[in-house]
Amino acid sequence: MSYKNFPMVPRVIFGRGCINQLNEILSPNRMNVKAPFIFLVDDVFKGKSSITSKIPLSYNDKIIYVSAKEEPKTSQVDELVEQIILTTNERPSGIIGIGGGSVLDIAKAVSIMLTNEGNTSDYQGWDLVKNPAIYHVGIPTISGTGAEVSRTTVLTGPKLKLGINSDFTTFDQVILDPELTKNVPNTQWFYTGMDCYIHCIESLNGTYLNTFSQSYGEKALDLCKEIYVENTLSKSDAQDKLMMASWHGGMSTAYSQVGVAHAMSYGLSFLLGTKHGIGNCIVFNHLEEFYPEGVKLFKQMKKLHNIELPHGICANLSDDEFDVMIDVAIGLEPLWENAVGKDWRKSITRKKLKNLYQKM
Amino acid sequence: MSYKNFPMVPRVIFGRGCINQLNEILSPNRMNVKAPFIFLVDDVFKGKSSITSKIPLSYNDKIIYVSAKEEPKTSQVDELVEQIILTTNERPSGIIGIGGGSVLDIAKAVSIMLTNEGNTSDYQGWDLVKNPAIYHVGIPTISGTGAEVSRTTVLTGPKLKLGINSDFTTFDQVILDPELTKNVPNTQWFYTGMDCYIHCIESLNGTYLNTFSQSYGEKALDLCKEIYVENTLSKSDAQDKLMMASWHGGMSTAYSQVGVAHAMSYGLSFLLGTKHGIGNCIVFNHLEEFYPEGVKLFKQMKKLHNIELPHGICANLSDDEFDVMIDVAIGLEPLWENAVGKDWRKSITRKKLKNLYQKM
Repeated sequence: MSYKNFPMVPRVIFGRGCINQLNEILSPNRMNVKAPFIFLVDDVFKGKSSITSKIPLSYNDKIIYVSAKEEPKTSQVDELVEQIILTTNERPSGIIGIGGGSVLDIAKAVSIMLTNEGNTSDYQGWDLVKNPAIYHVGIPTISGTGAEVSRTTVLTGPKLKLGINSDFTTFDQVILDPELTKNVPNTQWFYTGMDCYIHCIESLNGTYLNTFSQSYGEKALDLCKEIYVENTLSKSDAQDKLMMASWHGGMSTAYSQVGVAHAMSYGLSFLLGTKHGIGNCIVFNHLEEFYPEGVKLFKQMKKLHNIELPHGICANLSDDEFDVMIDVAIGLEPLWENAVGKDWRKSITRKKLKNLYQKM
Repeated sequence: MSYKNFPMVPRVIFGRGCINQLNEILSPNRMNVKAPFIFLVDDVFKGKSSITSKIPLSYNDKIIYVSAKEEPKTSQVDELVEQIILTTNERPSGIIGIGGGSVLDIAKAVSIMLTNEGNTSDYQGWDLVKNPAIYHVGIPTISGTGAEVSRTTVLTGPKLKLGINSDFTTFDQVILDPELTKNVPNTQWFYTGMDCYIHCIESLNGTYLNTFSQSYGEKALDLCKEIYVENTLSKSDAQDKLMMASWHGGMSTAYSQVGVAHAMSYGLSFLLGTKHGIGNCIVFNHLEEFYPEGVKLFKQMKKLHNIELPHGICANLSDDEFDVMIDVAIGLEPLWENAVGKDWRKSITRKKLKNLYQKM
C-alpha cells in the first residue's frame, strides 16, 4: 500500500482584519519591480472599497476582475493567462485570488498555467501538471468550499467537469480573515456552508477514509452543526467558525474523497451551469438512500434557515441531456468508489442516476 | 493588531507502514551524492530492526544515535552539529529525526545550527534565527508532544529552558506512521498523551486563544478523551488517533500558548532533569485552582490507567533550589499571561509558586 504525501498550505494567517497585513506578506515574494502581483478579484467587489481598499498595489501590480457567476471554465483560465502574458513584461511575482471557491480555483489554475504549456484542459485529472506553479495566494471571501486548502481546482472543460489535482495546485499562502465574509447574502452563506457539510458527510461515510482525514472531517462537521443546527453563535463567531469548518473540511480530503452528491452535482453543473453550492444541495436533498442521517439533518437545517430549493430543474430535459449529465457523473470513478465501494458499478446504473436526476 | 503568519509543515504523509516510503520521499531532496542525509535516532532503537531496518542509507548517509534519557540540551545540539561538520565533507542534504519529542526537537535544532553561526543557546527565544535551516524531516515514534508540527524546539540551556521559536524551526516534512508507536511502554504512553491533553486544557482556557487554535485544540481534546476516558478503542485505532491528537494539539499552539503546568514543569526539568511528560503530570495534578475541570478529568484518567505519580520530588530542596525553579518558571511570561491574563504578576507570586512546588 502506498500513501499520498500530502502538500499542506505552508503559510496561513488567521484573524479578523488580518488582510491589512497583505502588503507585508507579499513584499518579500516580489521577484523584481517589473514582475507584478496580479490580483484576481471576484467582480462582485468592483467599486466596493471594503475589499478593494485592502489591495496594496505597487509598481505594475494590477487587479483583474473575474466573474464567478458561472462555474469556472478551462477557457476562462486560458483567456486570463493570455491576458496576463500580453499585458505584463515579465512573468508575474504572484497571483492572488480574492473571492469564493470559483475565484480561488481560477487563481490556482492561472498560477499553474503560467508555467505549464498547452491548454488548461490538458491538465484536468490527477497529477498531470509538470512544473511548479508561480507563487499564489488565496484569500477567501466566503467560507465552505475548502478551495483555500485543497490540492485541486475544479474546472468545467470542453469535455468534462474535473479538477486539476496536483501537488502544485495548493496555495503557497492563505489569508483567513473572517471579516471579509460579513456581507455574504444569507442563501449564499447557506449553500456554501452546506458544501462543507455535505463534503464532510460524504468523506466520513466513504470507504477511503483514514484517521487523518476523519479527524479533520469530524471537526468540520462539529463546527457546521454548531453554526447551522445549534444556531446560537454571534454573527462574528459564526463567521470565524465557518472559516475554520471550511479549512478543516478541505483538509479532510487529504485521504478521502467526496461522494454521490458531488458526482451528480458536477453533472448538473456541466449541463445546466448550476453553481456548485446550490447544486450540491439540490442533489443531496434526494440522497436518503446513501446518507440517511446526513440528509435528515440537512432537511432540518434547510427548514431552520428558511431555505427553499429550486424544484423541477430537470423537468424538461431530453434523454440526450440526461445522458450528458450521467456521463459526467458516472465518469467520476473515485467518488463512486469512495461512496459505494469497489463494486459500485453493480448498484450505480445509468437508470438509477436518471431516476434520481428526474426527482430534482 | 498584528497576527502571526503561521508556518505549517508543507508535506505530511499519514498511514500505518508509510515509513516504507521514506526513500522515495527523501531521494528528490538529496543535494548530491556527497551531501548525506543524517538520521538522528533515539538510542532506544539501537539494534532494534523494527526501526533501523526502515532507514534507507545510501552514499555517505549515516545514523547518529541520540540519547533522550534527559531533556534535550543546547550543549547536546552543539556537540551534534560539531560531530556532523567534522565527519561530513559537505553540508548534509537533510536531517531526519526519528524518536519522541526530545529527538524531534534536537533534529530541528541541529538543522537550524548547521546554517546559523554561534551557539545554540544564542537562539533560545522568539524569532532570533536568521537563516533558513537545512531540509529536516520529523518521524515521531511516540505521540503527544506536538513537536512534529510546532514552530519551536524546547531546549535546556546554561541559563534557562526555553524554545527556539522561529519560522525556520518547523519541519519540511513529517511522516506520521502510527505503527512506529506500537511498542511504547504504558506509562510513557500515558505521560506523553497527557502532554497533549494538558496542552489542550491550557490553550483552550488561555486568554490568547482564537478560533483557529480553538478548533484544533478542541479536536485534540476530543481525541484524548476518546482514547483515555472512553478507553474502548482497539490498540491500532488508539495509536492512529493519538498521533492525530498530537498533531492537532501542536497545531493549536499557532495562536495560543501553554500555561501554568508547562511553566512550572520547565522549572522542575531545569533543576531536577524531570522529563517533560511526567513533569507536566506531576505539576498538573496540583492545579485545580487554575484548571478545575481539566484536573478532575486528569485524576480520573490517572486512576483508570493505574498510573502512580512520584511524590515528594521537591521534599529535600533548599531555598536556593526553589529559587532556581521559580526563576525558570516565572520567566516564561507569555505562558503566565496566557494562563492568567495581563495582570498575572498580581496573583502569581514567588511564594505561591513555592507553595505549589512544595506539594509535588
